[in-house]
Amino acid sequence: MRKCVGAVDIGGTKIWAALVDYRGEILEEIKLPTQAQDGAMEVVERIADALRHLWREKKFDCDLYGLGIAVAGSVHPQTEMVGLAPNLGWRNFPLKDYLAEIFSLPVVMDNDANCGALGEYHYGAGKGKHNLLYVTVSTGIGSGWLVNGQPVRGASGAAGELGHWVMQREGRYCSCGRRGCLETLASGQAIARYAQELIAAGGGQKIRELADLPTAQTVNQAAALGDSEAQNILNQAADYLVQALDQAILFTDPDLVLLGGGALQKEGFYWQLIQEKLTVKTGFPELALVEAKSCLLGAAALAWQKFSLESK
Amino acid sequence: MRKCVGAVDIGGTKIWAALVDYRGEILEEIKLPTQAQDGAMEVVERIADALRHLWREKKFDCDLYGLGIAVAGSVHPQTEMVGLAPNLGWRNFPLKDYLAEIFSLPVVMDNDANCGALGEYHYGAGKGKHNLLYVTVSTGIGSGWLVNGQPVRGASGAAGELGHWVMQREGRYCSCGRRGCLETLASGQAIARYAQELIAAGGGQKIRELADLPTAQTVNQAAALGDSEAQNILNQAADYLVQALDQAILFTDPDLVLLGGGALQKEGFYWQLIQEKLTVKTGFPELALVEAKSCLLGAAALAWQKFSLESK
Repeated sequence: MRKCVGAVDIGGTKIWAALVDYRGEILEEIKLPTQAQDGAMEVVERIADALRHLWREKKFDCDLYGLGIAVAGSVHPQTEMVGLAPNLGWRNFPLKDYLAEIFSLPVVMDNDANCGALGEYHYGAGKGKHNLLYVTVSTGIGSGWLVNGQPVRGASGAAGELGHWVMQREGRYCSCGRRGCLETLASGQAIARYAQELIAAGGGQKIRELADLPTAQTVNQAAALGDSEAQNILNQAADYLVQALDQAILFTDPDLVLLGGGALQKEGFYWQLIQEKLTVKTGFPELALVEAKSCLLGAAALAWQKFSLESK
Repeated sequence: MRKCVGAVDIGGTKIWAALVDYRGEILEEIKLPTQAQDGAMEVVERIADALRHLWREKKFDCDLYGLGIAVAGSVHPQTEMVGLAPNLGWRNFPLKDYLAEIFSLPVVMDNDANCGALGEYHYGAGKGKHNLLYVTVSTGIGSGWLVNGQPVRGASGAAGELGHWVMQREGRYCSCGRRGCLETLASGQAIARYAQELIAAGGGQKIRELADLPTAQTVNQAAALGDSEAQNILNQAADYLVQALDQAILFTDPDLVLLGGGALQKEGFYWQLIQEKLTVKTGFPELALVEAKSCLLGAAALAWQKFSLESK
C-alpha cells in the first residue's frame, strides 16, 4: 500500500490539512476556516474533521505513518506543547496530545516558520541549502532558521522572533508590549492599517475604490496601478523589513534566504520593492519567494523524518 | 603522561597561548603583544614562539593531542581558513595549515566569540546551558551562539555579526561600509572615541585628568567617580547595546546570556548599566559577565572535542 503522512498547517485564519507522500506530493487536501473567536477545542474538532474528510476521500488506501503539525505559535522543543499562539489565542495548549488521542497516531509539531523552512529544504527551493533562513510576512512576521538542515528552536521554542525586533524606538505600541516592532511597521496587518488610517484621514482615493476595507493585497493592487499613496505605504514598510532582513542575514550567515507569507505575491509591488532594496543594501543574491504550501509540506517533512525512521 | 592540548587566543592586541588539560585547567600560559602593522607571517611566528616557550617551560611533559585556535575573525566552517579578520588585517589566510606544518600537529580553529561560548559551556558559567548566547564587547562587538552545545557558524563562518547591526540609520560610517552599526555606538573603541571627541571639544575635564588618551576603561573609571559626562557616554552606549541584546535574545531564545570582552568589568559602570537596562527591557534574568579566558578555554575545548575523540 502507498505510504503517506498527514500534515496540518494551523494559521490564524484557516486550517490546511493534507495527505502527503515521501516526495512531498500532496495526495489529497482540504482547507477549513478558523475564526479568532473559536475556542481551542473547536479548532481541535475542526482539525479532526479535516483529517477525517481526507481519509474518507482517500478511502484509507494510504498506510499512514503519523501526523505532522505546523502551528502559528511557539512549540516547546521537548514537550511539543504549544507555548504561545497569539493569533489562535492559545497558551500552553497540548494540541499534540489531543490529536494523538483522537486518532491513535503519533504526532509531531513545530512552529509554522520552522516548518516553512523545512518544507522548502526537503521539497522546494531550499534543497541542499543547509543554512537556510525563511521569513514569513503575513498577519505577523516570523522566521525559521535551519542549521545543518535542522530548525533552530531555542530554549523555549521561541527562536526566530524577528517580528518583535524594535525598529522604531518611539513607535506604535505592539501587542507584545514593546514599541515600534517590525510587525507594527511591515506586516500585512500593518500595511492594511496604514491604508485604513490614510482613508480615515480623507486620503487613499484609489485604495478606497478597490475595497471598502483595504488589506495588504489591496494596497499592492493600488501600487501596481501607479497609485503613489499606496506605493509610499509599501516603500516605507519595505525599508523596515529590509533593515530587519539585513540584520537577520548578518546574524545567521545563510546560504539562502526565502520569503513567504500572504503579504507577498510574486508579481506584487511589495515583493518587488523588497528584492530591489535588499540587493542594494546587502548585495545578497540568494533570495527567493516561496509558495504558501511550504509550511504544510514542512509539517509533512517533520512527520516523515520522525516516524518513517522510527518504523524502520 | 599527563595529557593536554595547546590553546591560542589571537586578538587584535595580543596572542594568549596556553597548555590546557581536559578539565579546562591552564597548566602553563604566555601572552605576547601583536601590533596592527604586523604582517600575517609575523603573527604566525609569534604564535609559534609562544607555543615553543610553553613546551620548553613544561619540558614536554605533556602528551599533546593538538592545537585549538580562537581567532578574532570569521573562520570558514569547512576549510577552517580565516576568511576575514579586520583587526588582524587578514583575508583568506590559511593559519591552520601554517601551524599544522610548523608543529606537525592537528589544528582546529574557530571564531573567538564562538570559542568564548564554548569555553563557558564546557568549563565555566554555561555548563548545562545548551542554548547559550555569548556577546563580546571589546574593540569590536561580536557574538557566539551555541545550539545543542555546538557553535552556529553559518554558511561562511560569519554568523553572529551583531556588531554590524544598524542601530542608527543616519549614524556614523562604520568600517564595514554601513552607517550607525552597533560597533560605532557601543564598543570599547566607540566609548573611547566619544571621550576623545568630548575632550577635543573642550569638555571631559575629569576624563582628561585620568588619562591623556582615554580608553573605555578611563571612561568607566571617571563614571564610577561620579563624572556625569562619562556617565552620559556610557548611558548612551548601553542603550544601544541593550537594544541589540534584546533583539539577539528574541532571535536566539537562549537559556543563558553571557557577556565578556575588555570593555566590560565586573565592578565597572558600563556593565552595571547594561545589567539594569537589560533586566528592565527584557525581564531576562539569566545574565552573567565572564572572564577574559573564555575564548582561550573554548579553543582548548575545540581541540579536546576533536582530537581526543579522534585518538580514541
